[in-house]
Amino acid sequence: MAYLYYVAWRRTTSATIMETLIPTSALFLLLLLAHGTEGNVPRQFDSLPVPAHLTTTYDISLDDRYNCTAGDGQPPNRVDTTERVARLRQEMANYGLDAYLILTDDEHQNEFVSPADMRLHYVSGFSGSWGVVAVTMEQQALWADSRYFLQADNQLDCHWLLMKTGLAGVPLPAAWLGEVLQAGARVGSDPMIMTATNWMSYATTLSESGIQMVPESTNLVDIIWTDRPPHSADPAFVLPLQFAGVSWQDKVEQVRTEMLSRGTSMVMLSALDEVAWLLNLRGNDIPYNPVFRGYIILGQEQLQLFTPSEKVTPQVEDHLNTQHCTSGLCVKILDYQAIEDSLKALEDDPFVSSVLINPSTLSYALYSAIPVTKRVAGPSPILGMKATKNPVEIKGMRNAHLKDAVALCDFLALLEREVTMGVYWDELSAATKSEEFRRQQQNYVQLSFATISAFGPNGAIIHYQPSSETNIPLDTSSLYLIDSGAQFLDGTTDVTRTVHFGSPTLQQVEAYTRVLQGQLDFADVVFPANSGISLTDIEILARKPLYQVGLNYLHGTSHGVGMFLYVHESTLPAFGVGEFLSDEPGFYVDGEYGIRLENVVEVVEAITPYNFSGPSLSFWETTLVPYEPKLINTTLLTRHQCDVLNRYHTRVKEEVGAEMLTQGLQEAYTWLLSKTNPISC
Amino acid sequence: MAYLYYVAWRRTTSATIMETLIPTSALFLLLLLAHGTEGNVPRQFDSLPVPAHLTTTYDISLDDRYNCTAGDGQPPNRVDTTERVARLRQEMANYGLDAYLILTDDEHQNEFVSPADMRLHYVSGFSGSWGVVAVTMEQQALWADSRYFLQADNQLDCHWLLMKTGLAGVPLPAAWLGEVLQAGARVGSDPMIMTATNWMSYATTLSESGIQMVPESTNLVDIIWTDRPPHSADPAFVLPLQFAGVSWQDKVEQVRTEMLSRGTSMVMLSALDEVAWLLNLRGNDIPYNPVFRGYIILGQEQLQLFTPSEKVTPQVEDHLNTQHCTSGLCVKILDYQAIEDSLKALEDDPFVSSVLINPSTLSYALYSAIPVTKRVAGPSPILGMKATKNPVEIKGMRNAHLKDAVALCDFLALLEREVTMGVYWDELSAATKSEEFRRQQQNYVQLSFATISAFGPNGAIIHYQPSSETNIPLDTSSLYLIDSGAQFLDGTTDVTRTVHFGSPTLQQVEAYTRVLQGQLDFADVVFPANSGISLTDIEILARKPLYQVGLNYLHGTSHGVGMFLYVHESTLPAFGVGEFLSDEPGFYVDGEYGIRLENVVEVVEAITPYNFSGPSLSFWETTLVPYEPKLINTTLLTRHQCDVLNRYHTRVKEEVGAEMLTQGLQEAYTWLLSKTNPISC
Repeated sequence: MAYLYYVAWRRTTSATIMETLIPTSALFLLLLLAHGTEGNVPRQFDSLPVPAHLTTTYDISLDDRYNCTAGDGQPPNRVDTTERVARLRQEMANYGLDAYLILTDDEHQNEFVSPADMRLHYVSGFSGSWGVVAVTMEQQALWADSRYFLQADNQLDCHWLLMKTGLAGVPLPAAWLGEVLQAGARVGSDPMIMTATNWMSYATTLSESGIQMVPESTNLVDIIWTDRPPHSADPAFVLPLQFAGVSWQDKVEQVRTEMLSRGTSMVMLSALDEVAWLLNLRGNDIPYNPVFRGYIILGQEQLQLFTPSEKVTPQVEDHLNTQHCTSGLCVKILDYQAIEDSLKALEDDPFVSSVLINPSTLSYALYSAIPVTKRVAGPSPILGMKATKNPVEIKGMRNAHLKDAVALCDFLALLEREVTMGVYWDELSAATKSEEFRRQQQNYVQLSFATISAFGPNGAIIHYQPSSETNIPLDTSSLYLIDSGAQFLDGTTDVTRTVHFGSPTLQQVEAYTRVLQGQLDFADVVFPANSGISLTDIEILARKPLYQVGLNYLHGTSHGVGMFLYVHESTLPAFGVGEFLSDEPGFYVDGEYGIRLENVVEVVEAITPYNFSGPSLSFWETTLVPYEPKLINTTLLTRHQCDVLNRYHTRVKEEVGAEMLTQGLQEAYTWLLSKTNPISC
Repeated sequence: MAYLYYVAWRRTTSATIMETLIPTSALFLLLLLAHGTEGNVPRQFDSLPVPAHLTTTYDISLDDRYNCTAGDGQPPNRVDTTERVARLRQEMANYGLDAYLILTDDEHQNEFVSPADMRLHYVSGFSGSWGVVAVTMEQQALWADSRYFLQADNQLDCHWLLMKTGLAGVPLPAAWLGEVLQAGARVGSDPMIMTATNWMSYATTLSESGIQMVPESTNLVDIIWTDRPPHSADPAFVLPLQFAGVSWQDKVEQVRTEMLSRGTSMVMLSALDEVAWLLNLRGNDIPYNPVFRGYIILGQEQLQLFTPSEKVTPQVEDHLNTQHCTSGLCVKILDYQAIEDSLKALEDDPFVSSVLINPSTLSYALYSAIPVTKRVAGPSPILGMKATKNPVEIKGMRNAHLKDAVALCDFLALLEREVTMGVYWDELSAATKSEEFRRQQQNYVQLSFATISAFGPNGAIIHYQPSSETNIPLDTSSLYLIDSGAQFLDGTTDVTRTVHFGSPTLQQVEAYTRVLQGQLDFADVVFPANSGISLTDIEILARKPLYQVGLNYLHGTSHGVGMFLYVHESTLPAFGVGEFLSDEPGFYVDGEYGIRLENVVEVVEAITPYNFSGPSLSFWETTLVPYEPKLINTTLLTRHQCDVLNRYHTRVKEEVGAEMLTQGLQEAYTWLLSKTNPISC
């Protein structure tokens, strides 16, 4: 999946190599240079210079809002939140606040949030995945990034100032508040939501204007949000060892050993995928992400899970040894709300000298609850353990992708058959059908993200998702791009293919071929293990075939993938064996078409003819879906790329083909054969 | 030139992309992880993990020294400095110091230093280019990096502890002093030598043990060094505009404009290449580097050069308008020793609110002399201006390389003729001869570094330089590697070629070919301008052909090159048009041979068939010297690499060939033709 959402960089630690999405305008870069991490802005490459021809100074005023002159027709998706903001201001007065900050985040810095946590959307009407709202007694402003300028301008009513983050002259929230408020003013926000790092950044900037950040533990939006949807009441469930591979007890012992060597008495986990992974539990609290709300406190002797009581079933209790402690490994289950007090109580615990936390992913409230002398900042030891899959998980991921490939190929085969025959299909029906096919596969649970099903010009909108308003039919006149994936009990998948049911243009063929070359070269690279090589070192390989002719794509190339966890998962600072990542170059022409090819690949040890200084690593394709031969200009491929491509198609034919026959999918098999003929070059 | 010397990372700023040499043992990596920048250690990649199989815990004791048991024969290069250390201790007592730190640096953080500044060598006998000495009343220790473990063990007498920096268990200087000294102890060093950043790092670490860093402005080594050679007495000289391209007055105005936009009143330059570049002066104060000792203080109104009086000739004064001020642009020349007081006097200057300096390259004494409220840390504005050559400088660099190529080819042609005929040649005579040929070329000034002339197994010693002890003959039995370069008035050159006068082995041919492929791919890359792409993003291209088969080279790939300035020059954070850099992959088999191919390339705008979002950049070879056909396995090359190679050789034949004929070098021309025949592939 291409980065529809800014990867919650705040969630990842120094271990992050998750690429954030670069919006189609590179204006975002200006932001980063000017402001760094102030105020919740996703961070990309620090040192990128601002393309001079792309900077525009922007006037921030209500006059600049779209269709906000009297008499203007209102866009259909504009939401009038005047009344909600008024009620919010009433609460602000009640709580003695001059301004209130609202984020798109939840307490666990999840990339996707539960509808119950979509507070910013409630207050502003803006439905993008990232934004910041600041409401004062006189004004209300929303910060959006360039992915969403247009969307925000449409959705916000005309009382809202739209802060187009990244444009020259547009201040960040803390700076803006410093300008519009007086010294002595109090700015409130929910400290259980904002991360410690961001909170302290706001506090520092605001204090320069004599303004105070106030941690108001009552969330003011929750007071006024009368029809607020509840959080999911679904329970957690046990992930059997046949999928998890290593028992939670063994995982805990491994973490405890690591903690000893780091000299830390205690670790606190707030990332839901880490909580789930450690205890071999899953849930259904976040759309597309099989996790449940919880925190873990882990010491050498203690192990506490803080989770809402409805998450806990008898099976879960049994699994966690809550009653019958064997080998000192039991989980004490406490109430979700008790986390803050439990952290505060560590003050009096002489056996706890240090608690390892990550201030850029932990909420300010919980960070502050830990006694300051006991706080140790650092990356979570779980991150690497989770990222590098164990042999059972690896087997599971490979198997999940095999099933996923069968489903996707079966779907593409059907689509091709029918569209070329003139049967009606559109983006929505295609998305629905692709899910149906996946649902037939064993151990399918749900999708891993909302399917991107994009025909023609919609393919050029990198974060596109079809809706009833935007849905268009599929036909033989242009390219169709589908980026989709699933959660299976044995793995998370994410794959993108681009197809053409008619006659592609020469330009489309050249573009597709260059994207393909980049994808092949990226996955084909070999490098010394223990060399510290990471994504940024090999990014050029994915882009080079496009760069050579002056082309590019404005999004990231790769993200980690979880094992029946997050489709965007944190990775190690440098590639490690057993990690699964995406390999997804693309090319887009605004208003015309989009091309993206995405595979998930596995980091493996490479066999090399020589051994200079230890083992080498490479990638092994996990995704096994054919490419579209009519979109490949074989004369552009090098001999080596041709070999690599043919060997891949041979794997696809053998592995996916065999599974198709086992499942009795004859038509899909025929289609598969037609797409995997060796190319001569 | 390969990185024989740790690039003075301290000299470069956030703009550094100068690769440091990774020693053949990767033990150095451990250092970086463990200790960061503490104590003057050159910095490489922060996040490289330690290869587990390479870490060794080392015992530090006099018992571990080489041949230090009674009766052992002493290595011929061992220097007994007992008496010198005794006299140093006397001075330490006189100055109330419990320990004294001595570095290999000079006041300007030059990578190469004048013999007058080789204080560490005087006191210890160790002659390596990087080291740290700490002398207490009881003990004396030298820190060396793994390039020099063997050399240090040989050169130091048996009173010295040898600290093998990077090995597990070996403390850095500040930590060691913290162990061996009592609280209240005073550690002295010359604050005009140690950088501010390092000084403060030492001070912080030592203060944890209650030990104080004492800035003793009298250099204790200078007191005891009775036969200390003088600094060069050579004057500075004017670099004519026909080479400099832009007058110093125009340069100064440009810097002043930049200072205005940065809001800084004053800039201080301590790097000698920046001083020289700004004023279009050169000198002869550092071996191989045409610079002279000086500092510059530059404000909107003032412009002061602090330099020893013997540097100033009437021509220099005239050039700098010291007497006749036109357009307010004159240089006031002050004594070199006056810099510290002049900086202190800024305290009382109401017109100076901020002085821009770089604490990691400026000495602690001068850093401290600047009033603390006026210090602004940041990269020098000169760095980028100097790195991106103006059109005249570009023309000059290209011309200098043309002459250099003629000389080198003429030399290689002679060498091949004679060695194959059995005429006696050795590494030293070859180095001498290559310099002779260069000296014949117009505007030759000197070499740009000591020539690396290495036959057979000596080629595998990356920092090898032939001496009378190590010199071996050249013959037809193995590879000969020559890495050499010159200073011309119109440019600095640096080139490496590897040749074989007999029949290379299959392994040597494969290795050479893969190194060549890496060099070609690196230079051939195209990337969007304004994308922030820098060396680390494209490094993989130079290494990939080796990596693919499990091979590697343990040194950097590229460094900036100056225009009749430093052969290792600081570069911009991201590639910029007009920069000149080296492209130098290699491959080495310890005890057998070494292969390195180095070209200087120029960053240029690339012409691309498409334009996605602005211009693209690429590299244009400045070095024009043929490769050795017998060392190329053409079947390994891709079609594209073959084309690139043939086009390069065509350029060489045309440009260098024409110049050879102009110079009447018929035999060289014949040789050139034989090496530049198109390869069919």
